[in-house]
Amino acid sequence: MTGMMPESSFRSFLAGRGKGVEAALRRCVGGLVAAVPEPVRAAVEDGVLGGGKRLRPILLVTACEELGGETGEAVYDLSASVELIHAYSLLHDDLPCMDDAPLRRGRPAAHVTRGVRAATVAGAAMIPWAAGWAFESAVRVGRTREEARRITLHLLEAAGAGGMIGGQAVDLLAEGRSPDGAEPLDEAGLERLHRMKTGALLAASLEIGAMAAGGGEGALAAMGRFGRNVGLAFQVMDDVLDATGSAEVLGKRPSDSEHGKSTYVQLLGVDGARNRARALVAGATASLDAAGLAAPRLRELARFVIERRR
Amino acid sequence: MTGMMPESSFRSFLAGRGKGVEAALRRCVGGLVAAVPEPVRAAVEDGVLGGGKRLRPILLVTACEELGGETGEAVYDLSASVELIHAYSLLHDDLPCMDDAPLRRGRPAAHVTRGVRAATVAGAAMIPWAAGWAFESAVRVGRTREEARRITLHLLEAAGAGGMIGGQAVDLLAEGRSPDGAEPLDEAGLERLHRMKTGALLAASLEIGAMAAGGGEGALAAMGRFGRNVGLAFQVMDDVLDATGSAEVLGKRPSDSEHGKSTYVQLLGVDGARNRARALVAGATASLDAAGLAAPRLRELARFVIERRR
Repeated sequence: MTGMMPESSFRSFLAGRGKGVEAALRRCVGGLVAAVPEPVRAAVEDGVLGGGKRLRPILLVTACEELGGETGEAVYDLSASVELIHAYSLLHDDLPCMDDAPLRRGRPAAHVTRGVRAATVAGAAMIPWAAGWAFESAVRVGRTREEARRITLHLLEAAGAGGMIGGQAVDLLAEGRSPDGAEPLDEAGLERLHRMKTGALLAASLEIGAMAAGGGEGALAAMGRFGRNVGLAFQVMDDVLDATGSAEVLGKRPSDSEHGKSTYVQLLGVDGARNRARALVAGATASLDAAGLAAPRLRELARFVIERRR
Repeated sequence: MTGMMPESSFRSFLAGRGKGVEAALRRCVGGLVAAVPEPVRAAVEDGVLGGGKRLRPILLVTACEELGGETGEAVYDLSASVELIHAYSLLHDDLPCMDDAPLRRGRPAAHVTRGVRAATVAGAAMIPWAAGWAFESAVRVGRTREEARRITLHLLEAAGAGGMIGGQAVDLLAEGRSPDGAEPLDEAGLERLHRMKTGALLAASLEIGAMAAGGGEGALAAMGRFGRNVGLAFQVMDDVLDATGSAEVLGKRPSDSEHGKSTYVQLLGVDGARNRARALVAGATASLDAAGLAAPRLRELARFVIERRR
């Protein structure tokens, strides 16, 4: 495919966007921690500012930009809200009562450094804060208060029982350690899990980027389809990387197969899973074609999802 | 005071309103549990439908009614959203990593019957669900979508880091068992804790009731002041009842003093605390007077808060 960046250049693009996102995250977290005392404050900082690919906020900013929206500080602030929702899910996933993970991104998880109580409260605080921050940021991007509220409710839908948190619930049931001894998922169940647990927020990140740019229904629908396909491709590739990688490269233990969970590698084999991811990305870029959207960076992001090595 | 109901008649009033609230809670929870699998579904039901005074939704419905708003099913549905936020806080407070309470309302807590993981995810699911449910209900009450979104964001502010969840964080710090060995709170600190942890949501229940009735700024401000005063009076009386009551009457262990937490009884003595509660209720009713609001039921509710025996 002509005109595509090599992975190293694309990582530079991501790093550049990531800088703007990190600055926005510090502003966002700064407001939240001003409202809560230690040790919750430290748990929020650990949970949000401890690094990460920042894929969701980068998708939001990129979608906004590629649909002709503004690219200043306010849209980066808006992007911080989706990362906060994501960070909440990681904070809770790592808890002893959930996945009981001691490491996150190569460092001790927040519940280890700050205590389980502080991590639990910190996670809970992030959801309403993300909502309020999204609203304020959307107004500063230049949207009306009505549009800003629409954006906020869309974020909450993606975070909630029909989306990310619902996916956490499905995950709870599906894993081999659940109290009623449920069997691992088949492919349809695994897809449903991923579409809720990660796809909803990824799609919402793109859709909110489009809404921030004042995009119409066609652009929004294309962003949603693109996001759901790329989101699932991302999960499939996570399974491939887990199966083929190691703890040092990934920064966390490859844990899913240890918990008796289904993976795309178990269901389809490594090559089958890779092919599935490629087909999903092809579907994602076809959505952009159908909507007449050039969106070159989003296309590169989709390719990056399957070509990355971590 | 002439025209006031005896406590038994007022309990009948509460029971009547409570019936409408219970039906609305079943509708609200029915939607949420349709989206999540077992055992989270059961944890949601245990956490929300296991009984309770339903004070917050009753305040909402009463405020709406007394400001001339509609009194049908939709406003009861709206009231369920504030109870869901409240139920979330109880679900999390009882967790082993928080207050580690085995009993709630005289029954085993949800984390005991359904597991800690299910209770954690159930609690997290309630916040976004409450937001979406509030929005839909406010529209069915007859508000515009713009007003409905305003109501939803107001609910989230009250639930979040500046309100209920922030109060949970302050509580975490103040209790004698916190990792950095903080001292118990003085009276100012205790008031701040309660205003956040319980006052914000109580005030919001009344304010949202006023918004549901299409009330103006004056009514909203009066509802807020009334709610904050009655809310603090409620907490002060909880401390009095804890100090003078027993587990059988209250349905849970009187636990605060065991955790080394400050209470109004410790700070002011039983009589001093009762007097403080009475002064707060007087302030609450003065807010209604100043706004020219008759609001007879709200005035009775305020008196009930200090005259109840449980």
